[in-house]
Amino acid sequence: MAEPELMTTVEATARAVDAFLDARLAEGRRPPRLVAALRHALFAGGKRMRPFLVIEAARLFGIEGAAPLHVAAALEAVHCYSLIHDDLPAMDNDDMRRGKPTVHRAFDEATAILAGDSLLTLAFAILARKDAGIPAGRRMRIVGALAEAAGIDGMIGGQMLDLAAEGRFDARPPRQSIATIRRLQSLKTGALIVFALKSAVHLAPRATAAEKKALATYGRELGLAFQIRDDLLDAEGHSATVGKAVGKDAAAGKATFLAHLGIDGARRELDRATAAGEAALRSAFGARANVLSALLHYNRTRDR
Amino acid sequence: MAEPELMTTVEATARAVDAFLDARLAEGRRPPRLVAALRHALFAGGKRMRPFLVIEAARLFGIEGAAPLHVAAALEAVHCYSLIHDDLPAMDNDDMRRGKPTVHRAFDEATAILAGDSLLTLAFAILARKDAGIPAGRRMRIVGALAEAAGIDGMIGGQMLDLAAEGRFDARPPRQSIATIRRLQSLKTGALIVFALKSAVHLAPRATAAEKKALATYGRELGLAFQIRDDLLDAEGHSATVGKAVGKDAAAGKATFLAHLGIDGARRELDRATAAGEAALRSAFGARANVLSALLHYNRTRDR
Repeated sequence: MAEPELMTTVEATARAVDAFLDARLAEGRRPPRLVAALRHALFAGGKRMRPFLVIEAARLFGIEGAAPLHVAAALEAVHCYSLIHDDLPAMDNDDMRRGKPTVHRAFDEATAILAGDSLLTLAFAILARKDAGIPAGRRMRIVGALAEAAGIDGMIGGQMLDLAAEGRFDARPPRQSIATIRRLQSLKTGALIVFALKSAVHLAPRATAAEKKALATYGRELGLAFQIRDDLLDAEGHSATVGKAVGKDAAAGKATFLAHLGIDGARRELDRATAAGEAALRSAFGARANVLSALLHYNRTRDR
Repeated sequence: MAEPELMTTVEATARAVDAFLDARLAEGRRPPRLVAALRHALFAGGKRMRPFLVIEAARLFGIEGAAPLHVAAALEAVHCYSLIHDDLPAMDNDDMRRGKPTVHRAFDEATAILAGDSLLTLAFAILARKDAGIPAGRRMRIVGALAEAAGIDGMIGGQMLDLAAEGRFDARPPRQSIATIRRLQSLKTGALIVFALKSAVHLAPRATAAEKKALATYGRELGLAFQIRDDLLDAEGHSATVGKAVGKDAAAGKATFLAHLGIDGARRELDRATAAGEAALRSAFGARANVLSALLHYNRTRDR
């Protein structure tokens, strides 16, 4: 699949997820400032990569419609909450995100904390909706998998390791091994990506062991490739294109692949992960893997 | 039921919930600093009132054991997360809680934000556990009810209204009507209390409409009575007994019942709510309501 065609598919998914989340925000009688902050955070032109993975992976098994859309929207809510909290002054202290002021800059810190808390809670409220059309037993497994991927054994654990690695809690943090960096990145950004693909398997009771394994490998390699591309953009990108401040990783002494592998080594690892992710997909899904495979190749050279 | 007997029952529940949460924290390979912060927040000698409500309300229907314990522990995790985030400098900026430094004072702000996020996520992970022994359909309804009670239409919405009422977002906030104060308190502290009682109904498929209504009324009146007692303690209590700074509400211009009703008016409203909550319980459950009724009376005169 060529890149323009991939982008059309990505945008169609993003519009469906945005419409779904927009409808959820319009429900009820709610503090307007909090709703405005949620809209600011949610509708900032994100690529919706995680929802795209849910929807395209479910499509591999012939599943479309409300069920994957609910899971995709719940996952995006979790991702957006994590960005709001990560940007806070006490965390990464970022002023810009996707070319706009971060939530605590556009509103205030208290509103940003509560907006993040709201989105994390909303994710589970979305999965609890009966109109998802997912049998309760499967929905419950998805709730458990999302809580695990987002929690202390997943994303939050990774964020904590990341803060530790940059010396937040010690005057002189130990130099991080490549194994530690791999682990923290697989938790911080990998866990939600792997969840996206696992959730499709929860929706598709007939997935074979080989198909599950292929999606898991693809998820791990895509997560790694995505992180390395982000590191490269931080080192080489222009902030106007990337949409946020660049060069911050090196300045903060962040534990990145780049710091260990150098630019050439990181590029080689990016190529390896791209090839390994594609091989896993192809072996299980053949030509049906075109879309998910195109995403891997798009990531290799994306500029934001 | 006399107060010493009530306290024995409350302490037995607290021990069971603590043991359950302690076992959850011991699972997995996790950043030790984050686990230490979670222990600091969770095991601070809280009364575990919300778990007590879940377990005693379920007992009204003859339900005991793993099912109510899971719901109780999930609810306590949500309550503790809300305390950690409410205490943050950007929110209420509290240094002490239950006689100990708050999490951001004992650790740091980033750790406190992530500890709160972890507990909110853990609550849903606990409900997703199969060993809760709750059929998936009912567990799913409990997930939905908890997400609603804790989210923007419940506790978080109430916290946002509270910040607005104290003039956080306007130079000159409008004077709050008693209706607004009632609404914000029913969201901020009432929603989780009402959830505790509703969850018992979700666990007890044979609950009658009259029983559901009685528990809902009890929950509303208890929530109100609990909040008024907290306001009175803030105005009249000693910080050494209460375990946190007192007199902060008036200083912050907080929208409280006390500010509207005065001390005598607040005491009268506390007595009315106590009597109304008890009457609702007695009409549906008779002598079986002794324990939940004792909690109402205990609240009326508690000193912390």
